[in-house]
Amino acid sequence: MNYTMCWLEYRKLPENTISNLKDWFSSVSILESDASALKNEIREFSEKSLDITPRFHSRPLKKKKYIMIGSLDSLPFGIEEDPGEEGFILRTQNWNGSKILVVTGKTKRSLVYAVFDLIRRIRLGEDIEKMNVLEKPKAKFRMLNHWDNLDGSVERGYAGNSIFFKDNRIIVNQRTRDYARLLASIGINGVVINNVNVKKQEVLLIEPVYLKKLKRLADLFREYGIRLYLSINFASPMYLGGLDTADPLDERVARWWREKAREIYDYIPDFGGFLVKADSEFNPGPHMFGRDHAEGANMLARALAPFGGVVIWRAFVYNCLQDWRDYKTDRARAAYDNFKPLDGKFDDNVIVQIKYGPMDFQVREPVNPLFGGLEKTNQILELQITQEYTGQQIHLCFLGTLWKEILEFDTFAKGKGSYVKRIVDGTLFGRENNGFAGVSNVGDSVNWTGHDLAQANLYAFGKLAWNPDEDIEKIVEDWIRLTFGDDRKVLENVSYMLLKSHRTYEKYTTPFGLGWMVNPGHHYGPNPEGYEYSKWGTYHRANWEAIGVDRTSRGTGYTLQYHSPWREIFDDINTCPEDLLLFFHRVRYDHRLKSGKTLIQAMYDLHFEGVEEVEKFIRKWEELKDRVPYDVFERVRERLHTQLEHAKEWRDVINTYFYRRTGIPDEKGRKIYP
Amino acid sequence: MNYTMCWLEYRKLPENTISNLKDWFSSVSILESDASALKNEIREFSEKSLDITPRFHSRPLKKKKYIMIGSLDSLPFGIEEDPGEEGFILRTQNWNGSKILVVTGKTKRSLVYAVFDLIRRIRLGEDIEKMNVLEKPKAKFRMLNHWDNLDGSVERGYAGNSIFFKDNRIIVNQRTRDYARLLASIGINGVVINNVNVKKQEVLLIEPVYLKKLKRLADLFREYGIRLYLSINFASPMYLGGLDTADPLDERVARWWREKAREIYDYIPDFGGFLVKADSEFNPGPHMFGRDHAEGANMLARALAPFGGVVIWRAFVYNCLQDWRDYKTDRARAAYDNFKPLDGKFDDNVIVQIKYGPMDFQVREPVNPLFGGLEKTNQILELQITQEYTGQQIHLCFLGTLWKEILEFDTFAKGKGSYVKRIVDGTLFGRENNGFAGVSNVGDSVNWTGHDLAQANLYAFGKLAWNPDEDIEKIVEDWIRLTFGDDRKVLENVSYMLLKSHRTYEKYTTPFGLGWMVNPGHHYGPNPEGYEYSKWGTYHRANWEAIGVDRTSRGTGYTLQYHSPWREIFDDINTCPEDLLLFFHRVRYDHRLKSGKTLIQAMYDLHFEGVEEVEKFIRKWEELKDRVPYDVFERVRERLHTQLEHAKEWRDVINTYFYRRTGIPDEKGRKIYP
Repeated sequence: MNYTMCWLEYRKLPENTISNLKDWFSSVSILESDASALKNEIREFSEKSLDITPRFHSRPLKKKKYIMIGSLDSLPFGIEEDPGEEGFILRTQNWNGSKILVVTGKTKRSLVYAVFDLIRRIRLGEDIEKMNVLEKPKAKFRMLNHWDNLDGSVERGYAGNSIFFKDNRIIVNQRTRDYARLLASIGINGVVINNVNVKKQEVLLIEPVYLKKLKRLADLFREYGIRLYLSINFASPMYLGGLDTADPLDERVARWWREKAREIYDYIPDFGGFLVKADSEFNPGPHMFGRDHAEGANMLARALAPFGGVVIWRAFVYNCLQDWRDYKTDRARAAYDNFKPLDGKFDDNVIVQIKYGPMDFQVREPVNPLFGGLEKTNQILELQITQEYTGQQIHLCFLGTLWKEILEFDTFAKGKGSYVKRIVDGTLFGRENNGFAGVSNVGDSVNWTGHDLAQANLYAFGKLAWNPDEDIEKIVEDWIRLTFGDDRKVLENVSYMLLKSHRTYEKYTTPFGLGWMVNPGHHYGPNPEGYEYSKWGTYHRANWEAIGVDRTSRGTGYTLQYHSPWREIFDDINTCPEDLLLFFHRVRYDHRLKSGKTLIQAMYDLHFEGVEEVEKFIRKWEELKDRVPYDVFERVRERLHTQLEHAKEWRDVINTYFYRRTGIPDEKGRKIYP
Repeated sequence: MNYTMCWLEYRKLPENTISNLKDWFSSVSILESDASALKNEIREFSEKSLDITPRFHSRPLKKKKYIMIGSLDSLPFGIEEDPGEEGFILRTQNWNGSKILVVTGKTKRSLVYAVFDLIRRIRLGEDIEKMNVLEKPKAKFRMLNHWDNLDGSVERGYAGNSIFFKDNRIIVNQRTRDYARLLASIGINGVVINNVNVKKQEVLLIEPVYLKKLKRLADLFREYGIRLYLSINFASPMYLGGLDTADPLDERVARWWREKAREIYDYIPDFGGFLVKADSEFNPGPHMFGRDHAEGANMLARALAPFGGVVIWRAFVYNCLQDWRDYKTDRARAAYDNFKPLDGKFDDNVIVQIKYGPMDFQVREPVNPLFGGLEKTNQILELQITQEYTGQQIHLCFLGTLWKEILEFDTFAKGKGSYVKRIVDGTLFGRENNGFAGVSNVGDSVNWTGHDLAQANLYAFGKLAWNPDEDIEKIVEDWIRLTFGDDRKVLENVSYMLLKSHRTYEKYTTPFGLGWMVNPGHHYGPNPEGYEYSKWGTYHRANWEAIGVDRTSRGTGYTLQYHSPWREIFDDINTCPEDLLLFFHRVRYDHRLKSGKTLIQAMYDLHFEGVEEVEKFIRKWEELKDRVPYDVFERVRERLHTQLEHAKEWRDVINTYFYRRTGIPDEKGRKIYP
């Protein structure tokens, strides 16, 4: 096996804990047929961590203690609690003269989750004798979006090539299965395997030439409770169907999609549905035919509805041919302006997928005002696990802390307590089809994510999607222990590094919500005016005395898209959270922050601090030599040193940029290149 | 034929001039065997322009008037003048009872030139009865460099795909012949067909798999007096020979190249030689083995010497991994610093090829100080016909005026009169193997050069390489008349446009020798800080009060690479030519120019002027409707309108950039975006 298993790397458990566990795991009663995934996982764990090979039985046993796995229906006794469709129960209890650990839930998928959770708890040292767990996921849709292309490349991928595609062929192999295991272990229940930009070759994915192999992939996914989804091209009826239009109100188009849906479901009866990037960055959509997003999405949704499929429609729609001389258009407004008027017009099996912020996954943005803006529309929160603007898996940048802040943001849509997490779990507006989508950071590199510590981003995404109320510190701790074991120093240092790292990255790149000072195209490394005169609508308009776009009620009016009190808070330079100051306001360099520092001095300070923090990360990591596997240590060490070099580059470029603009020296006399 | 023939488009001549010419051309005596190219050209011309088909004879005729073509040796009478190896004589005289037009020279190549020149003169209206011409090229090497890749792409090509390569195969067809005709008609005597960046596939060009087809190409070229050259990879002995080194002082390496040379000359007995980009922008070279350029070039030269080949060694060597925080390294110094110490160390059949300026073909640079710096080294002046930084054949930018200024630059290397043109023609330092290289602007587009008027750049390059003393206005006039005929309005307007266009492009892009404010990578369109923090050594370091790099004796010392009085003139901000001010000096925005304007006001003014001039070009062109062929009119018209739009983009970005830097408004209150 030429790759690691991340947090599922089952190591031998300490001898003193093993003996009792051996009793439990030596015989396992599985009351389900077709339970190979469950057996496989229990076997893997038992052999590697407990040094035994379990025996599986298909009925209850006469034995002092054993594990009994089965759906609620199949159990020889009743259970009162309702774990829901995807939740599960782990409970140690006496029954029929035996002590049994009951592992149960309503569905096959729930049993998969239950088994992975049981193993996780045991590995984390929970007492099997006292197990009493009822777990339900908060959100229904917990999806990964892969931006993988059929040629094997991955758009914004920083971990090697695609694990799904190579040379225009679909790959299904042991690694596919291991990926499904990883995802199931964190509760992911849907995967879109291809890039939202559906180009020439990828249009063909919904044709029989690919559906045959996709069926095999879906079969494998199904064992792990994962539904397969595909990104589609809205103009497919023209590319594939020979029609002269893809107008969603044209009956020929609708019929073509209905027939296409039937064809897909013939191969994949539990096919999840379509992800659609329409009328966005040169992808076709209903606007091309004078129709709106609801008309486009609903037409597709009606084709899928008979089979239980959904349409996930991205809200990432904006004018990507803006002229920098156009001061009225504000890209930040685009998602709200486009979708708010359509609230309530989407069918029940349409979900609008909304990026966390109004721009595009910058290191910090305000929460997208569509959250709280849309009340009668299903919504998925789109997060970017792959580190496009956040260091491309060369820099350590744990994103769980950022995501947690987003989830805890109170939109005030229905008064206090209207958190984003209550929107995406569906409770705030009483909607069922809500959830999370994360853009995958996985590729075929040895450690799946390029940077070993970037595995934590994938893990944290899954855990937050399952339960956005969970403490991020606890998630980090679990990930470290599952991945590296129980060494306290490792836990302490890696925890420190991960929890600090996003803030650190923000400090030495673009703090205050500035964003976009990156090299165009590949988005790596500093370029303060790289996007300043381009068509993408991302301008800071720095001049000799001020920087930033006025997005207040006196400017582009973007703040008015928020509910009170945020619209007032954001609108006022004195109350606006300072880490978003330059997102909302045009600010003079000599503006005094709450600390008493000027903006420019704070800018300098943060950049020096950020680099010092990376130096500290390196010291923390060096302390772990011989405490983590040698190859992991070396890989991470090398990346940290590259990060330090590139953090210095960021510091110096940004500091110099501001110094050259203003002529204001650093108060502390540190080196700024003139 | 799906392409035009540019200035060789032989149109019917006016009836009143034809009758006499018919007499002359009806019978042509060609005293040479193997004269198919000559016959072909005379036939083409006669049929299309005179409406007759000439008869060819292999000996003198009994006829009242006729044309007699033959080498000096073959003539039945003596001629006193010595036209040299490549020169020719056209003379109308009486002989043996006939009036004959004698077309003669020493070599086959000279006869090709003579025939093309005769046709040109006749088309331009010269009186055949009074013909009395002795023409010799001033420079020995008059080369084109194609940056074509075997896959058919052209690096910095803006006129379609390669005419030489497609899908890793070599193309030899009618278009190849027509290209050879075009080149012969302007005196080009050597073509390097492949990119100086010799990548994986291109390394194979010197292997038999390609040499067979190259022989066919060389055979065709030979008919038109053109020698074939190849760019080679210095590490070929490692790639192809299985050696573990390409060290030029390793006898195994030298032997490999000797054998390779013999192999090439077996196929192509008049093979021209190698063009080498060594130790430059990631291409291998002798530095990799601890050797200098002379050691590298001489080793190759000794392999080629027995067969009469040369090594052309590019001086474009600099540190392309500079850190912008490094203020000492000055890329402008690099060519001189690298090559001046090697002056006199190169073998006689090595030629150092030097870009016109010290950087890289910006719209304006000072003349490279290696011209005048090198006294004991053969030199080729490298010009870029393809408009990489000068508008990519979307913008009209005739380069002949710039080239003429370069050629007329007096280096003072041997006192007053030490013009660049006297260096490249070899006379100043008494060197034989000097000349010109132009990076081709040709591709497989219908008009060869993308922009129809960019054909003038190719034409002017050839004419200046033949005779750098020729007036550029005359060259332009001839090109227009040969291409479009004798319409006075066409002559007047196109002449105006061409002669102005470089200055105009300079005005709305980066005047004052600033350069480099382009988008990185593709080099099109404005990006004022696009290269400011990159590794390429091209910085302007603008801050709140000044812009430019101090390259004087008080700065990087670059001015000291020039002879007096230039070093003193360039060194002093008050005497430095203003169109190079920001190349040599760091200048405050409020610096007063000779006009009394501040630098920044002049910057604004030039940008507004530049756009107005493009508007004028459009008016001038619109006047030519129905005076030039419809398709040409439409193609040029469309490009001019795109140019105007992009010129405005340049104007606004650069003006805004300076305004945002300084806060200094335009005195005339014109629109500058804040």
